[in-house]
Amino acid sequence: MSLDRRRSRVILAAALAAGSHAACDAPRQPATPPPVAAAPAAPSAEPLASWNDGAARRAILDFVARTTRQGGPDFVTPEQRIAVFDNDGTLWAEQPMYVQLAFAIDRVKALAGEHPEWKTTQPFKAILEGDLKTALAGGEEQLMPVIAATHTGITTEEFESIVSEWIGAARHPVTKRLYTEMVYQPMLDLLAHLRGNGYKTFIVSGGGVEFMRPWVERVYGIPPEQVIGSRVKVKYEVRAGLPVLARLPEVDLNADKANKPVGIHQAIGRRPTMAFGNSDGDFEMLEWTTSAKGPRLGVIIHHTDATREWAYDRGSPIGRLQRGLDEREKRGWVVVDMRSDWKVIYSSAPSRRAQNQP
Amino acid sequence: MSLDRRRSRVILAAALAAGSHAACDAPRQPATPPPVAAAPAAPSAEPLASWNDGAARRAILDFVARTTRQGGPDFVTPEQRIAVFDNDGTLWAEQPMYVQLAFAIDRVKALAGEHPEWKTTQPFKAILEGDLKTALAGGEEQLMPVIAATHTGITTEEFESIVSEWIGAARHPVTKRLYTEMVYQPMLDLLAHLRGNGYKTFIVSGGGVEFMRPWVERVYGIPPEQVIGSRVKVKYEVRAGLPVLARLPEVDLNADKANKPVGIHQAIGRRPTMAFGNSDGDFEMLEWTTSAKGPRLGVIIHHTDATREWAYDRGSPIGRLQRGLDEREKRGWVVVDMRSDWKVIYSSAPSRRAQNQP
Repeated sequence: MSLDRRRSRVILAAALAAGSHAACDAPRQPATPPPVAAAPAAPSAEPLASWNDGAARRAILDFVARTTRQGGPDFVTPEQRIAVFDNDGTLWAEQPMYVQLAFAIDRVKALAGEHPEWKTTQPFKAILEGDLKTALAGGEEQLMPVIAATHTGITTEEFESIVSEWIGAARHPVTKRLYTEMVYQPMLDLLAHLRGNGYKTFIVSGGGVEFMRPWVERVYGIPPEQVIGSRVKVKYEVRAGLPVLARLPEVDLNADKANKPVGIHQAIGRRPTMAFGNSDGDFEMLEWTTSAKGPRLGVIIHHTDATREWAYDRGSPIGRLQRGLDEREKRGWVVVDMRSDWKVIYSSAPSRRAQNQP
Repeated sequence: MSLDRRRSRVILAAALAAGSHAACDAPRQPATPPPVAAAPAAPSAEPLASWNDGAARRAILDFVARTTRQGGPDFVTPEQRIAVFDNDGTLWAEQPMYVQLAFAIDRVKALAGEHPEWKTTQPFKAILEGDLKTALAGGEEQLMPVIAATHTGITTEEFESIVSEWIGAARHPVTKRLYTEMVYQPMLDLLAHLRGNGYKTFIVSGGGVEFMRPWVERVYGIPPEQVIGSRVKVKYEVRAGLPVLARLPEVDLNADKANKPVGIHQAIGRRPTMAFGNSDGDFEMLEWTTSAKGPRLGVIIHHTDATREWAYDRGSPIGRLQRGLDEREKRGWVVVDMRSDWKVIYSSAPSRRAQNQP
């Protein structure tokens, strides 16, 4: 299986960030699993019930109220109400590595039986031996066969089944929760509040679009047609009379950084009214959104809670947030302090298995 | 301005089909403008009011009823209700040339003042002299600079303004109507009926997505984020502190034929429930839709009305329909006979200017 090396380099940035991260000290990562989060808030008339009543919550509520007040100076017509959300670190946790990298590693282990040559081929050998440091030490070039072997060479429906099965069982290495139990309750409250006010909610992630679509509708209430992400090329083929889309080992879009507005333009075709991110990978998305005419809101989720989640920003290889903090004031972006602004972090009580952990 | 020739070849198929058409006899094209269509039907409780009560209308109404009957064997959940529509020849007229080619020709004329060299450079020279036959005689290679000069080298917002202005004033060479007055009233009724039953309606066209988005929301009620089409690459740039997306002379997706399912997968991420097309360019879209499990409906709009519109199918360079007719029975696709199934063709009374025509 050959991989288009030049065009595939960018999509590996995510995996590599995790890789370099694995080789260095984790930024204020909790040594023990975070304490049990409160049970998810019951549906309530109060909007953003899981948020503390601070400046961030008030700014968001005020913006929604202003843009939906018919006849007001900031009224936005229903069809223009588009809100875009980064996924990793904005809607769910991204430490100590992007969930999609954990998926790729598990896929290598699952496929090893069909690939005896991996026992002696790097980086597969190191992954199979649990030596992540060595596996990721070779950089982009060395990781490409892993992405190709775990994400391509199958049909879109086969990939969807694989992701669905994995996401239903795989658990986070620290919290032992299902990954879908590590979505942020305050963001679910926010999604519900926006939708209740006529906003269409979209995900715009550097992660793979087909890695998200199988579960985000169930977990976030966001349908597949409102998910934008990185993607490989696919090819239409008729096999034994039935059509399939074959996933090719060539990147079609790496939807990170300056490509987030590109992905938004391709899929949505107009500027969002609101944008939510957590890292400098979201900078251009916030810039594109908030530099348009009319009322716009840019929001940064700042990971400040080393006790209940993780605390990281300028120095973190995953979710690095530097330029966003430097320019937030000048650009009028709202920064959410997870520690003080959020009553709870995760969306659901941990599973029994997690509760049994020390 | 350089054009990526290899990757751009496919997108030109549409323009070329029109080109070869211009050089041959039009298939049963009306010699005089079609007669004045009935005024658009007033909103009515009767669904598909502009359709005659034939097999096609009944098949569509029955399918919608079955798939929305809660508890019935063919019930489709609201979030799965996706209907996709080709544009040229399915939602509006495509004869005697694709509207987008008329746009490109008009753009050459509008830009000629800035390009004195075009007076002596083919195919610009021929276009400026109104000699379409010569202009299109050189085939794909010769047309590429025209596409590049008229569709790229500007920002997405500049292109949107140009399209909006053009579509508001340009008139069809035969009917003298605004092009947006050449959309099919029966299809507007159908779109309304589907949306009234919880279906999300999408356009999936080989035409340029940015050529459609500026007007389809107003005309069809389909928002930009539900429009899939061919597209060029765009690049995010910050100019004088403000971000833009620059349109590059390189094709990113040619959303025709086997690439229609690719475009559907990229943007929607699940199989449609219903698909509507009119030519073999829509074959794979109908195949992809109707070969999935569960209730599916494929519909072909057959251009059979040489009096009120145009009659063409197997032999037409534009909108060729051959394989679709050959396999309709085997695949269970519904064929709409425009002459007998539609009470009216166009959506609105012609303008004063058109009424003054002989």
